[in-house]
This record gives sequence, structure tokens and C-alpha cells, in this order.
Amino acid sequence: MLLHHYPLDPFSRKLRIGLAEKGIACELVDVLPWEREDAFLEVSPAAETPVLDDRGVLVPDSMAALEYLEETQTARPLLGRSPVERAETRRLIGWFDVKFVREVTDLLWREKLLKRVKRTTVPNSEAVRAGLVNIHAHLDYISYLFERRNWLAGDALTWADCAAAAQLSVIDYLGDVPWDKHPGAKEWYARIKSRPSFRPLLRDRVVGLKPADHYDDLDF
Amino acid sequence: MLLHHYPLDPFSRKLRIGLAEKGIACELVDVLPWEREDAFLEVSPAAETPVLDDRGVLVPDSMAALEYLEETQTARPLLGRSPVERAETRRLIGWFDVKFVREVTDLLWREKLLKRVKRTTVPNSEAVRAGLVNIHAHLDYISYLFERRNWLAGDALTWADCAAAAQLSVIDYLGDVPWDKHPGAKEWYARIKSRPSFRPLLRDRVVGLKPADHYDDLDF
Repeated sequence: MLLHHYPLDPFSRKLRIGLAEKGIACELVDVLPWEREDAFLEVSPAAETPVLDDRGVLVPDSMAALEYLEETQTARPLLGRSPVERAETRRLIGWFDVKFVREVTDLLWREKLLKRVKRTTVPNSEAVRAGLVNIHAHLDYISYLFERRNWLAGDALTWADCAAAAQLSVIDYLGDVPWDKHPGAKEWYARIKSRPSFRPLLRDRVVGLKPADHYDDLDF
Repeated sequence: MLLHHYPLDPFSRKLRIGLAEKGIACELVDVLPWEREDAFLEVSPAAETPVLDDRGVLVPDSMAALEYLEETQTARPLLGRSPVERAETRRLIGWFDVKFVREVTDLLWREKLLKRVKRTTVPNSEAVRAGLVNIHAHLDYISYLFERRNWLAGDALTWADCAAAAQLSVIDYLGDVPWDKHPGAKEWYARIKSRPSFRPLLRDRVVGLKPADHYDDLDF
């Protein structure tokens, strides 16, 4: 399998973690999706990463790709064992893919990292301020879930953990996750951060933008 | 089954169309999600519509709900018959749920309809202008797909049609869909608009905001 991805794209990272957790070997193809190169537009009509390539079967969209993996690679399921468990996992994926993105990632990562990489405009400071406020409620929610469960959606690690950790990992690259104020969320993140599936993400670097000092430290 | 919904919420509408297409009777519970009433927060921790209630099993998040319906109500599948077909359907659902929402719905519906209903600020005219430009590329893409296929994702109507029509229906309420410039997209929309599953949506009204004249007209 191939994964067309941008290393600091949280949706690509969700798939990278999940693929590794499922034990699927996958070659990575680096893309700068906003350059809209013809070769990439043929792979992704939406010009967005990630795109999974399963021996020629192209699956753009991270949600479509993870459902495809669950249907075709059943050895290590990461959605849950029953329709009700899977509904809970998918609810939480939606929480992080949509709500967290709208309230945090779009305001911090998109403003501070993506604008820098794309060399467009400067970050909107009002947006950044709002993102730094909004993240607290999400870390509280992770702590709340983690107090009651072994992983976010239940006993086992699922795509919900991959989705949440993927979003937080790019905010953490910027040093904008207030871990010290949220010990529960920090404990959950330390647990997933120390897994082998997470290691490759800790080695990613953006040219001209150094990660926060603790970014690749397992004892942050 | 119950569906907690806001009548003019496109994600609720996606489920209403799909439920009807699957032949599932469903009672509607009207909610104003932004009021964050305690009773609703118990149903939806994210304070968002729609939430499906299957005899006590609560499934918030429209993607989680439609996957739950596909798993538990198999009589009339609306995702496709193989992993590859389902991947294509889900890719297009993602297109309309994420890309269309970011480029059109957030700029038109959220600005013009939601701000009016919530009585917050006035619409941002720059956002509205951008939304009116962006919608053309999406209508072109619908025309492109519809020239090659019977429905958006292939031979049969799927959740991709429900997702696209749901988004367009709330923009059409505002009269902001330039149908005349996109005959292919118009023909596809006329086809889904005339189905019994769509009729209840055409009767929805927002207090203080009349729909465009052609909104409930099948010969628009």
C-alpha cells in the first residue's frame, strides 16, 4: 500500500497511526497538496491529503480510507466489536475531525503552521487567541473520557484515539497544548505517544519551523 | 426511531432523506442546538444535530448515524455493494460534508440563515461573496459526475446524493443556487427533489425568513 500524505497534516497522521496499529506496511509519498500539481489532482480530485492507494485502488478522504481498511483488513479491527461500539468510535472521530478542527486546528495549525509553510498571509492573532482558549474544553473532554475508560472510545485503542492524537500532535509541534493544566489528557497522550505506531510522526520536521522542545520527548 | 434534528440543518437533512430512502419510519424531535439546553446536552455531548435514537441507543454525529443505519438496517443499502463502491460513496459524502461546507455552506447558510435565526451578528458580506463564487465549482463537479453516472456515486442513489442534496437544499432555501448556469446539476437535483423522501424538507419553514419562491417547486 501507498499513502499520499503531507507529514504535518493531521488527517494523514490519523491514517499513519492506524495503519501501523493494524500492522499494515505502507509506503509514504510526500505531497504538498496546496500546490495542486496535475499528478496529484489525478489521485485526489479534491486536492487533499491523505489518499490511500491499495495496489491501484485509490481511496481519497481519511474517513473513506479508514472504513475501507476496516472492511478489507480485518485482522486487527480498530472501530469496535459491535454496531454500538463502532457508533461510539465514529462519534468521537467526528468530534476530533470536525469539532476540534473547527475550534482548534483551523485556528492554530492552519494560521501558524500552514500559512507559514505556504507563505501566504501572517497568522490572524484573534483566531490564534480563540484557538488557545478553545483547546482547554477539548483537553477536559479527553480527561473526562480517559477517567472512565482505558482508551477514548472504550477498553481498546481505536481510530478515535488515532484521530484525537493526530490533531493534538500537530498542535503540540507548535508547542500550543497546555499539557500541565490537563494531567488526565497528558497521561492518555503519553500512552499513545510511546507506542511504536507514533514514532515516525515524532521524526517529522517542517523546514524553517522547529518543533517545540518537548515534541519528540516521551517524558514531556 | 427518533431523530433529534434542526429542520434547516443540512446534516439532519442528510439523515432524513436517507432514512426515508431506506424505508425507515422515524419520528422527528425539533431542537435548536445552539440553545444548549440541558436535556439536549444529555443526548448530544457536542450540542450538535442530528442525533439518532434507536430505541434508547443514542447515535450523535451524522456520519456515525448513517454507518450505524447501514450496519443495523440492511434491507436497502445506500453505501454501495463492495468496499470499492463504498469508498467512492464515502469519498463523496466527505466532499459535501467537509469541502462543500467549508467553501459554501459556512459562508452562505451559516452567515445568512444561522446568524439571522440566532440573532447574533449581521452576515459578513465578504464571506457571502466568496460563497457565491465557490458554489460554481461544486455545481460543475456535480454536473461532471452526473454526465457519467446515473447518480453521484454510481448506478444507484446513495448517501452521497443525500449528502449533496441536503447541503444544496439549505442554500436553495436562500435562493443562492445558480441553477440556470448548471443544467446538469439542476437535472440531478430535480430528480432527487421529486422523490417522496424529499417532500418533507420542502415544507420546512424558518420563522421570519421566507424561502426562495422556487424552493418547493418541482419545476424550478
